[in-house]
Amino acid sequence: MQLIFAVVQDKDVARLSERLVKAGIRATKLASTGGFLRSGNTTFMIGVEDSRVEEALSHIRQSCRAREQLVTPLTPLGNQVESFVSYPVSVQVGGATVFIVQVDRFEQY
Amino acid sequence: MQLIFAVVQDKDVARLSERLVKAGIRATKLASTGGFLRSGNTTFMIGVEDSRVEEALSHIRQSCRAREQLVTPLTPLGNQVESFVSYPVSVQVGGATVFIVQVDRFEQY
Amino acid sequence: MQLIFAVVQDKDVARLSERLVKAGIRATKLASTGGFLRSGNTTFMIGVEDSRVEEALSHIRQSCRAREQLVTPLTPLGNQVESFVSYPVSVQVGGATVFIVQVDRFEQY
Ligand code: NI
Ligand code: NI
Ligand code: NI
Repeated sequence: MQLIFAVVQDKDVARLSERLVKAGIRATKLASTGGFLRSGNTTFMIGVEDSRVEEALSHIRQSCRAREQLVTPLTPLGNQVESFVSYPVSVQVGGATVFIVQVDRFEQY
Repeated sequence: MQLIFAVVQDKDVARLSERLVKAGIRATKLASTGGFLRSGNTTFMIGVEDSRVEEALSHIRQSCRAREQLVTPLTPLGNQVESFVSYPVSVQVGGATVFIVQVDRFEQY
Repeated sequence: MQLIFAVVQDKDVARLSERLVKAGIRATKLASTGGFLRSGNTTFMIGVEDSRVEEALSHIRQSCRAREQLVTPLTPLGNQVESFVSYPVSVQVGGATVFIVQVDRFEQY
């Protein structure tokens, strides 16, 4: 059995949770902040049989992969720029940092 | 040395903490949610010498074991059912999901 | 690659975070309580190449090492002791409990 620690952005948590539940892969979520990813994040702790590691990684990759997103910057509230026009810009969101460690022993009570 | 990650229900946290403190087994609690157990949960991270793993597991088993509990369902507040009688029902509470990993190195500063 | 779990006191979190960021060592912080250290604490989860483990440990040691601090106890608000004089006393603060585990596999998406 393997223990997967996956740090993902908060915005991808619901999507990944749903996928794992559907697949019957059990995970718990540890409250986490800062570090590997810019904005708020959550650390999934996922226990899987060795034979399902690839499947679990595939769910993480598909839910959280770094991708471009069009964001329209906030229009300034002041009137210094009278005829301000806001163009959408592309920013990178998502991404996951994943560590897998070997489980020596697994118990359920 | 071994590192034990034990996901337990919030209602069992105080009992397990007390047992571990009494036994002189050091643990830290990681805020966690959802996943392995239905209701709110907490993840204990427990560092123990190899020779005390069984003892630590025994504390977890005795504090958190899945068991039946009689619960009286909430009586509806509305008066649609005038002569409502609430019978206690048996639900399963507790339980622990435990992963043990090998510690390569331990330091204290 | 190695995964370092370092439980440190809340008061040392900012200093350690700053050092790690400057060194380009990535870490995420898990909300944690009680256990290894008396007051509020935080668990750093730090992923490093084997060759940088010593460097990471040195940052933890220098940011969080247990040390003496002079604290002036709170003066009682009541007037039972009219001419109360508060002397500073030395207490131990800081400290870190560190577990290192082997990473079988590391992925970034
Ligand atoms: Ni295995
Ligand atoms: Ni050992
Ligand atoms: Ni390595």
